[in-house]
Amino acid sequence: MKKNILVGQSGGPTAVINASLYGVIKEGLEHPEQIGAVYGMVNGIEGFLSGHTINLSAELTNEDMELLRLTPAAYLGSCRYKLPENLDAPVYPLLFEKFDAMDIKAVLYIGGNDSMDTVDKLSRYAASIKADIAFIGVPKTIDNDLPVTDHTPGYGSAAKYVASTVREIVLDASVYQQPAVTIVELMGRHAGWVTAASALARKFPGDNPLLIYMPESDFDMESFLNDIENALKTSTAVVICVSEGIHDASGRLICEYASEAQVDTFGHKMLTGCAKLLESYVRNRFGVKVRSVELNVNQRCSSLLSSLTDINEADEAGRFAVRCALDGVTSRMVTFQRDEGDDYRLSLGLTDVSNVCNKEKPFPPHWITGNANDIGPEFTAYALPLIQGQPEHRLEYSLPRYLYRKVK
Amino acid sequence: MKKNILVGQSGGPTAVINASLYGVIKEGLEHPEQIGAVYGMVNGIEGFLSGHTINLSAELTNEDMELLRLTPAAYLGSCRYKLPENLDAPVYPLLFEKFDAMDIKAVLYIGGNDSMDTVDKLSRYAASIKADIAFIGVPKTIDNDLPVTDHTPGYGSAAKYVASTVREIVLDASVYQQPAVTIVELMGRHAGWVTAASALARKFPGDNPLLIYMPESDFDMESFLNDIENALKTSTAVVICVSEGIHDASGRLICEYASEAQVDTFGHKMLTGCAKLLESYVRNRFGVKVRSVELNVNQRCSSLLSSLTDINEADEAGRFAVRCALDGVTSRMVTFQRDEGDDYRLSLGLTDVSNVCNKEKPFPPHWITGNANDIGPEFTAYALPLIQGQPEHRLEYSLPRYLYRKVK
Repeated sequence: MKKNILVGQSGGPTAVINASLYGVIKEGLEHPEQIGAVYGMVNGIEGFLSGHTINLSAELTNEDMELLRLTPAAYLGSCRYKLPENLDAPVYPLLFEKFDAMDIKAVLYIGGNDSMDTVDKLSRYAASIKADIAFIGVPKTIDNDLPVTDHTPGYGSAAKYVASTVREIVLDASVYQQPAVTIVELMGRHAGWVTAASALARKFPGDNPLLIYMPESDFDMESFLNDIENALKTSTAVVICVSEGIHDASGRLICEYASEAQVDTFGHKMLTGCAKLLESYVRNRFGVKVRSVELNVNQRCSSLLSSLTDINEADEAGRFAVRCALDGVTSRMVTFQRDEGDDYRLSLGLTDVSNVCNKEKPFPPHWITGNANDIGPEFTAYALPLIQGQPEHRLEYSLPRYLYRKVK
Repeated sequence: MKKNILVGQSGGPTAVINASLYGVIKEGLEHPEQIGAVYGMVNGIEGFLSGHTINLSAELTNEDMELLRLTPAAYLGSCRYKLPENLDAPVYPLLFEKFDAMDIKAVLYIGGNDSMDTVDKLSRYAASIKADIAFIGVPKTIDNDLPVTDHTPGYGSAAKYVASTVREIVLDASVYQQPAVTIVELMGRHAGWVTAASALARKFPGDNPLLIYMPESDFDMESFLNDIENALKTSTAVVICVSEGIHDASGRLICEYASEAQVDTFGHKMLTGCAKLLESYVRNRFGVKVRSVELNVNQRCSSLLSSLTDINEADEAGRFAVRCALDGVTSRMVTFQRDEGDDYRLSLGLTDVSNVCNKEKPFPPHWITGNANDIGPEFTAYALPLIQGQPEHRLEYSLPRYLYRKVK
């Protein structure tokens, strides 16, 4: 008897979440004797509850599929929707009625920590009512903070974007002979993996960025200013990379230091990034030219500067999830294990989704070096394989063609 | 008798200013019977005054040259140095002594409006003392605001960066089903050419960015909020592009609206971008999710997303300047003229540098459409040819290899 598959995307966009969706659809189409249709939830579990689905296996052409694989963000749309803790809540039978109505036998959910929480709850509810539906999580987050797995799809592309973009910012920052400080703010409120990738921007040992500050260490303003004072002794152009989530020893975010003074014309607090705040501290202390740059959402949605390794792995994770679902696996998330040896090779595995949901994998403390202002070579060895290879985009007037759903 | 050439870079970095430098050196090397050495000023005329030069034709290897062609920012370093208006100032004989000491017969200066002012003054001083040195300007600016020339090297790459990056931001901004407004701030304080390029990001008519605001029109906050109110009636995700230089009818910059409230912990004014300011206006009015994104320096220093057409034209402009110098031309800037006809073809020309220096070419007012909130199709026809083609970068660990001078 044929099974239908339902797939959803959840949480923040990445450059490769659609490569996982592509993998799911493609693998689904390769098992016509076992799989009927691959349906997509529009806007994740939230949109599914409102009845928004697409028959992906029927509606997407071959050309659509090739575009989908390199389209950033989330083709199906996303949501930030938390299912109730109480499995007696009425939303659960409602969801399972809808699964039944569409003859769904496997639900694949592509997302991060919060999305795995959804997979966990649905799995537990299914077990409680002995429903024969497989629930599998496909990992996705640029933050790279999911436990158990070596890394997450989305991270390699974000890391590559940061490395190449910061390399270009360093060149830009170095053209004048007057002393100047450039502060680049990078994503990752709790985990510094994306910020650490700025270390890959260096063209030679001792190159900029000279200083890197991670959210895993306490940030001290005086140490920071001392670090800059030292850096300015030997370098005219000092480039610094900071995580958006840097905080002091009391846990207070650095970006909140100025919040009392920062009100808009309505008297409401205006949230400024920490780089903007540090900019004024540095200017006031040293009187040099200071610029802050917040790389913002392009870190997570640049397909043009993405990693082919990341795209291929995201695709594989989606395919593997389908094969596992056909084998009757449930309540698991797909994981990556790095094989032993000098060459980078990856094996796919599974972990109980409860090992992942609502947990975070911090950056290894011993990879943070110097006076908590630099990143060690272990990270470079870890991260370099993840950013390898360039995708070939289909272009139209030299701009990338991307697949989109027309939405209101 | 062989002549030496001196070349300098001045003003803000671009993705292709080094392609012009490459063109100058390459053309110089192709005339060994007429040209001795191609020297580079380090940090423009300011560094030259301090005696900082490089023998480019001797020091750069063939491999260096190929890397140079695709390296963004300014390999020679740059300056923002204004020569005195008074040609009797002592700096002029000092400069010409230095030219003589190096047997310089042609000075090529790659830069924008201010740099052409330098070319103009040096030309006039040379004429006044009957010095036999040619002074030629090679245009460069992402702002595309130099008069006479059809466009300027650097603009095509900035336009392409904006078009492709905004296209990706639009996908990122469209993943949730809740209404959201995204405001992207683009470079160009006086001229909106870079901001207008965001219109190229549209994948189909009526696509985002739905609203574009240029510094050539007066910005009115109530009209802006009305525009958004209308846009939100038909679109869940509204993406807006604004120039950093938008101002109201009185000439006051929008980014200064909040400056009184924006003080840092030292009591000093903190300059916030206009997008950040508009973010709070939109949030307060509509209560929807609002995000602001400032694309910042990557607009001018992204070689990875640059235009091959732009690179080739920048290279050609440098070569042409050398040939003109050999022909005895002086006091001129290289210009681009677009040939008549459907196909894009360019001719190189010259204009008296006094036609350019300290003047600005505004964006054509009739290309600004709607309620001064959109860009018409004439611009697309103008700009699309300028962004065509992708350069092939030399990679190392999948990151671009760039040429750099080691500086303190």
